Amino acid sequence: MNEAKWTSKPGQGAKGRARALPHAPGSQIVHFPQSEPLQLDCGGALAPFSLAYQTYGTLNEDKSNVVLICHALSGDQHVANTHPVTDKPGWWETMVGPGKAIDTDRFFVVCANHVGGCMGSTGPMSLNPETGKPYGLDFPVITIPDMVRAQARLLDHLGIRDLFCVAGGSMGGMQVLEWAASYKDRVFSAIPIATAARHTSQNIAFHEVGRQAIMADPDWRGGRYLDEETLPRKGLAVARMAAHITYLSDNALHRKFGRNLQDRDALTFGFDADFQVESYLRHQGYTFVDRFDANSYLYMTRAMDYFDLAADHDGVLAKAFEGTGTRFCCVSFTSDWLFPTEETRAIVQALNAVAANVSFVEIESDKGHDAFLLEEPELFDAVSGFLSAAARRRGLALPGAAGD
Amino acid sequence: MNEAKWTSKPGQGAKGRARALPHAPGSQIVHFPQSEPLQLDCGGALAPFSLAYQTYGTLNEDKSNVVLICHALSGDQHVANTHPVTDKPGWWETMVGPGKAIDTDRFFVVCANHVGGCMGSTGPMSLNPETGKPYGLDFPVITIPDMVRAQARLLDHLGIRDLFCVAGGSMGGMQVLEWAASYKDRVFSAIPIATAARHTSQNIAFHEVGRQAIMADPDWRGGRYLDEETLPRKGLAVARMAAHITYLSDNALHRKFGRNLQDRDALTFGFDADFQVESYLRHQGYTFVDRFDANSYLYMTRAMDYFDLAADHDGVLAKAFEGTGTRFCCVSFTSDWLFPTEETRAIVQALNAVAANVSFVEIESDKGHDAFLLEEPELFDAVSGFLSAAARRRGLALPGAAGD
Repeated sequence: MNEAKWTSKPGQGAKGRARALPHAPGSQIVHFPQSEPLQLDCGGALAPFSLAYQTYGTLNEDKSNVVLICHALSGDQHVANTHPVTDKPGWWETMVGPGKAIDTDRFFVVCANHVGGCMGSTGPMSLNPETGKPYGLDFPVITIPDMVRAQARLLDHLGIRDLFCVAGGSMGGMQVLEWAASYKDRVFSAIPIATAARHTSQNIAFHEVGRQAIMADPDWRGGRYLDEETLPRKGLAVARMAAHITYLSDNALHRKFGRNLQDRDALTFGFDADFQVESYLRHQGYTFVDRFDANSYLYMTRAMDYFDLAADHDGVLAKAFEGTGTRFCCVSFTSDWLFPTEETRAIVQALNAVAANVSFVEIESDKGHDAFLLEEPELFDAVSGFLSAAARRRGLALPGAAGD
Repeated sequence: MNEAKWTSKPGQGAKGRARALPHAPGSQIVHFPQSEPLQLDCGGALAPFSLAYQTYGTLNEDKSNVVLICHALSGDQHVANTHPVTDKPGWWETMVGPGKAIDTDRFFVVCANHVGGCMGSTGPMSLNPETGKPYGLDFPVITIPDMVRAQARLLDHLGIRDLFCVAGGSMGGMQVLEWAASYKDRVFSAIPIATAARHTSQNIAFHEVGRQAIMADPDWRGGRYLDEETLPRKGLAVARMAAHITYLSDNALHRKFGRNLQDRDALTFGFDADFQVESYLRHQGYTFVDRFDANSYLYMTRAMDYFDLAADHDGVLAKAFEGTGTRFCCVSFTSDWLFPTEETRAIVQALNAVAANVSFVEIESDKGHDAFLLEEPELFDAVSGFLSAAARRRGLALPGAAGD
């Protein structure tokens, strides 16, 4: 794999990064200099900028076996390796790895931390070259198309023109759709999972609650907490708790916790975490703070809220896909109430309207939105089957023939 | 209507109330002295205590036309009069009034602010007689049965033994069920609406987020904000925003707001309220603070979380209703995802198991949980029809024959 002059190993070239709260240990980083700005939908540009990324598997000789994975709101580039901050498995190790549905014995998998993120890519924690201080809210609002444009720059840098596949769930799925719409000739196949072509009112509403929770925390300091050496821990934890409920189904919560009490035999008639579900939520909230940046959370949620693929195409979603040659596998889950099946169906209908090659799988699951991250054999079968068929169609060389 | 020696008009006998943030203008208040404590499920007792209440219509001679209304989490006793703090119509004016489904030309309607509330009844804002300071978190945790026991005390005070009907939605519906279970011989008919016999994991989870938002606000001061002359406005506003989303259906939000922008033609690429739904939520959050007490919010949510009628009856819901002679009209709404129809169905099945007289109406509505507060002709028809039939069965005198 080529390593351009401005690709650095962690610890090198970290200039332009604010103190490493979450950082990018173990990840490769590409630095795009001031002279090569990222054009943004807001009208401005970001320069310089960096992307931290992980790769898995081996790039074959004709570079035809690349699978780009796009992470979700709270995800990062650590798809299939132990996470350097949490020491937990990669967020999609169930899906990606040797012999897995996205088989790293066969495919060269790339995943980059999104622009605006906090695991090594340039985001609101990074130093603003104009002030020498962390950007905070001076960081430009980033859109899903901006993130995709940055990913395309990374691929260009790696000398990769064509994607065999782009895959992702939730916000990652939005990026998959944006890739398919904006880079039609670079995407052979696409797997948008548990996602939508636009954020609904309810989605925006939940995000707004999270943002208000962060901004209500006096330690947020108008976004300048790094400078003032505080951290809006409580606000970010509340935001995460609220979001976390939306990732699970009512049934999943019931099965997992019911009304079970936490380490006690009876109600305490107080405000401690009497119920297991309370204890669980608090844990989710407060561990999130250790690996995620509050301002990044604002920017990531805003990018999702702003996403409306049809609006960018005269209000007609089908127009986004006109002339597409990409093969699509669209997946939804029956109990996902954050991105319900009807949102995926709208995507499929738009694809059908332009006679795209599309398969649609609605998976029976009671795990809610998070099902795409969990052990769902039907999901793995669908992705694996789709990729195998696409690989045959693409005439992909077998692993043994791959080279670097 | 009788007025006992310790019933006072507003402004009188307000001793025992902390500064009147929300207060009880226009409401009657009954004060129960130290010698007449309210026994609580937590094992303690509350004394002295007061209840602020409203009445509508005229009590008939044999006191057989009483309808008790139980308000929801954020409601109060101002059912059918202009609210003294917000100047808005009473929260159930669509349902209660002359000629309405709960017809005040016919029935004598009573509604009391719950114990633990903040509109004149004793709650965490009230002065703790032991310290002379507002209770704050020293206020005992109150349960739904505690609230119902207090209401029974109010009725005793008013010389009313039997309820022709007890009606309410959401948390009010929980109280309706508790009334029917605990005071079988005092309840002729009961209308639990959009409610459940227990709070689910998901319900508890949403409440926990709200509580954490309040407690995360440094102005909450461990619950002693009245003493320290602060107010956890931001925390309470965030709690209300999160809860408010759960009161509406995805469709209702979509119909109301879609992705419409607020007073602007294009996205601003910032964190202002670009979308109408954001502006609406912020408004809901920050106006709530003017009429509701943050600690009361903690106590009301906790009471709902703790509610589990079956658990109080050997885990068998039907046992709660054994031997009941009450006539029930159970109502749910198709788009209510906070208290979905299956929760009402569980109540109906328990009632059927004891051969209770029960009718069950699932109303087609896309307005979500809040449908019970809104213009829903089918709801009004169901309640009106049920009450007319029950009145005939009860042999209720016509309005003209009512006296006081």
